[in-house]
Amino acid sequence: MTVKKPGGLAGIEAGETAISTVGKNGLGLTYRGYAIEDLAEHGSFEETAYLLIRGKLPNVDELAAYRRKLAAASSLPEPLRRILELLPADAHPMEVLQVGCTALGTMEPETESRTAADIADRLLAATGPMLLHWYHYHRQGEAEETPGAEPELLKADTDDGADPQADATADAASGSSESAAEDAFDMDNYTVAGHFLYLLHGRHAEHIAVRVFDISLILYAEHEFNASTFAARVTASTLSNYYSSIATGIGTLRGNLHGGANEAVMELITQFDTPEEAAAATRARLAAKQLIMGFGHRVYTVSDPRSDIIKKWSETLSLWAEDSHLYPVSEAVEHVMRQEKNLFPNLDFYSASAYHFLGIPTSMFTPIFVVSRITGWTAHVMEQRQNNRLIRPTAAYVGPESLPWLAMHERR
Amino acid sequence: MTVKKPGGLAGIEAGETAISTVGKNGLGLTYRGYAIEDLAEHGSFEETAYLLIRGKLPNVDELAAYRRKLAAASSLPEPLRRILELLPADAHPMEVLQVGCTALGTMEPETESRTAADIADRLLAATGPMLLHWYHYHRQGEAEETPGAEPELLKADTDDGADPQADATADAASGSSESAAEDAFDMDNYTVAGHFLYLLHGRHAEHIAVRVFDISLILYAEHEFNASTFAARVTASTLSNYYSSIATGIGTLRGNLHGGANEAVMELITQFDTPEEAAAATRARLAAKQLIMGFGHRVYTVSDPRSDIIKKWSETLSLWAEDSHLYPVSEAVEHVMRQEKNLFPNLDFYSASAYHFLGIPTSMFTPIFVVSRITGWTAHVMEQRQNNRLIRPTAAYVGPESLPWLAMHERR
Ligand SMILES: CC(C)(COP(=O)(O)OP(=O)(O)OC[C@H]1O[C@@H](n2cnc3c(N)ncnc32)[C@H](O)[C@@H]1OP(=O)(O)O)[C@@H](O)C(=O)NCCC(=O)NCCS
Ligand SMILES: CC(C)(COP(=O)(O)OP(=O)(O)OC[C@H]1O[C@@H](n2cnc3c(N)ncnc32)[C@H](O)[C@@H]1OP(=O)(O)O)[C@@H](O)C(=O)NCCC(=O)NCCS
Repeated sequence: MTVKKPGGLAGIEAGETAISTVGKNGLGLTYRGYAIEDLAEHGSFEETAYLLIRGKLPNVDELAAYRRKLAAASSLPEPLRRILELLPADAHPMEVLQVGCTALGTMEPETESRTAADIADRLLAATGPMLLHWYHYHRQGEAEETPGAEPELLKADTDDGADPQADATADAASGSSESAAEDAFDMDNYTVAGHFLYLLHGRHAEHIAVRVFDISLILYAEHEFNASTFAARVTASTLSNYYSSIATGIGTLRGNLHGGANEAVMELITQFDTPEEAAAATRARLAAKQLIMGFGHRVYTVSDPRSDIIKKWSETLSLWAEDSHLYPVSEAVEHVMRQEKNLFPNLDFYSASAYHFLGIPTSMFTPIFVVSRITGWTAHVMEQRQNNRLIRPTAAYVGPESLPWLAMHERR
Repeated sequence: MTVKKPGGLAGIEAGETAISTVGKNGLGLTYRGYAIEDLAEHGSFEETAYLLIRGKLPNVDELAAYRRKLAAASSLPEPLRRILELLPADAHPMEVLQVGCTALGTMEPETESRTAADIADRLLAATGPMLLHWYHYHRQGEAEETPGAEPELLKADTDDGADPQADATADAASGSSESAAEDAFDMDNYTVAGHFLYLLHGRHAEHIAVRVFDISLILYAEHEFNASTFAARVTASTLSNYYSSIATGIGTLRGNLHGGANEAVMELITQFDTPEEAAAATRARLAAKQLIMGFGHRVYTVSDPRSDIIKKWSETLSLWAEDSHLYPVSEAVEHVMRQEKNLFPNLDFYSASAYHFLGIPTSMFTPIFVVSRITGWTAHVMEQRQNNRLIRPTAAYVGPESLPWLAMHERR
């Protein structure tokens, strides 16, 4: 055993939570007591969001009302659209979300009557549209990107045969807040997952695509004191406002050791044409002491229960996909990681190929994680506020002893 | 002794730092070994920033070059101005800064050649102008606010007698990036403090006003693992980008238990016309178990060395000020807090009256803290990166045991 680097708060209990368990003995991953396996098999993302933010599973009426609320919350104020348009085409999508959410906060601030839970619903519904408004605005007239997606899987199933993509793009250009794309989307059957894929591709996605995307949102929703959630709690602990915690969450999630890993995985696996190539390259990287993103975890020691779920879906989607070799390529990397380092894939590893098979551009992988994790961040901000104490640790000082003042002419 | 609330990481060493000591035995508050008393008496904010970000006190040539670099970095890109103009007039100024800094990050991203230290310099110089551009843009034509400021102290000492405020306002309106106000400001003698006061009031401030403001920036620059800095380090620990840590810092500083305390202090003391009134009201609040902002500290137990320094300057400024009674009012609150709770003022308490005497609107107090603390945040982000480990603690689970799945019709 090597001596661990200092810092990192590994294994330190930084507080209490009633929201989830991560790998606790006999419990596995649970959200408010419900097993992740049950949620992913029987639940929807909206039920998961309701559970996390409001503390219980919604009944039929509550769920229907919740979906209507989210559908209504998915359109963007006009000044926000203009702000998004002013961001450069090559901006980092995570910064687009950070600007968008914070700017929305100036327009719809937290008040007694607009609570954190209300704003969470607003952001759940509006964050995807923000990203996609910025995205389409800057890509009008460019050839449409549907990387790796077999047309069959993503083909339109709108009845009227209209081309809503053209409408969506025209709308982005005109900056109109009455979105033709939103009109064309079947708002009566609104889901966060379906709406996102619709706005991305300009047509209603296949049922299976919506379902897999929905499941991935369930899996990404909550994970105890992970770095972004913990940072969001530190922000909340100063009694700052809700939006500030969200900005902290987004900025912290972005890093490659956290949410950014899913994009890094994609960059890795697309370098390989065959499993053999992938295996050899993985061995070479490990020999060079490089990290392979999408493997390992601070808390899990044996496996990540979310990985098993998304892996199966990645395999299923690969059956339809153009780049289907990315699935056996991924498996080859997994095999080497287990063999050489006894490391297991975390949720980010097979999410990468799954999202790719859904025709989602790589730069949107981590922003999608945001859409989902807003639920967990919100639950934790609310919990932190209920029994708040300022989160303010201390540091071991390793700097210079007291130094006498140096007048300007004495300095080198 | 009551049992402390869980959480808060009080007294827990979350890592190592060589940047500052807070109340360490025999050292007091030091920045890279230099006593805060020396920095505030002999140093300038630019020297302090250089020391924190670059690790040494600058010599004569380095300091001159640094001031030139900052002066050149103080103008805003045109799209950023337009974004700031799209934010509502009643936006929270801390959100204006958060949008502004993040949007700047999309336009001037971190790269190999544009390092964290370079961006820190840019933000040091541009954050005040962002705030003041938004501020003046929305207040054109309104009567000028210089609350509590005696005209004598803040009177123009520009030679030509022109009215740069008019220019600055016209400029904000036209959105021109060639700022008439910036031209009129004496850029050869650029200081962050002088430039801020100039942009705020539209005229060169008195020497003493610039000096006190400069000292307050020195005092606010760095404070070990305070909540905003610690949160910024958590963000950095995922290998996120520099701007993300700054957004985290701003959002976390905003809370009333942290940087927001200086504004809360101002709201408190302006309620009182006499010391007697202030003392009685403070006693009543304590009896009602209310917190009095600007008192107490997680790490200091006897006093905050920064308070002694800013208190003297607040007293000095009160000699010129209209609302000079706010100084004896503040002293009365201090007296009661010591008597009743044995609590001492922290930096935020007398900063409030000092800023008010400088004619600074209350809503800018915490944004000014940002301008200064960017230096500390940057030093900590750089330090975190040098020997990084993901900061990811764990939580004690206090939620429900494993629950069986509830089908929709079974839910209440
Ligand atoms: C998640 C992660 C940051 C946890 O960090 P941690 O708890 O500090 O883990 P440690 O650094 O203590 O790792 C233990 C050992 O496994 C190695 N290791 C961990 N993850 C590894 C990976 N993905 N690839 C290669 N080696 C890895 C470490 O190098 C270390 O080896 P050493 O003991 O020889 O130094 C880490 O596993 C990682 O960087 N993974 C890749 C990024 C990722 O997928 N993040 C998403 C998480 S959901
Ligand atoms: C700074 C601060 C958050 C530190 O928090 P902390 O280390 O968790 O302090 P604690 O909550 O343990 O405080 C210890 C006791 O002093 C009391 N106390 C601390 N600061 C107080 C204040 N400003 N006014 C009244 N009582 C105060 C607490 O209520 C507590 O009393 P108790 O033991 O009877 O419950 C806290 O002192 C505070 O809220 N101060 C006001 C906000 C402020 O000025 N922030 C700027 C800091 S630079």
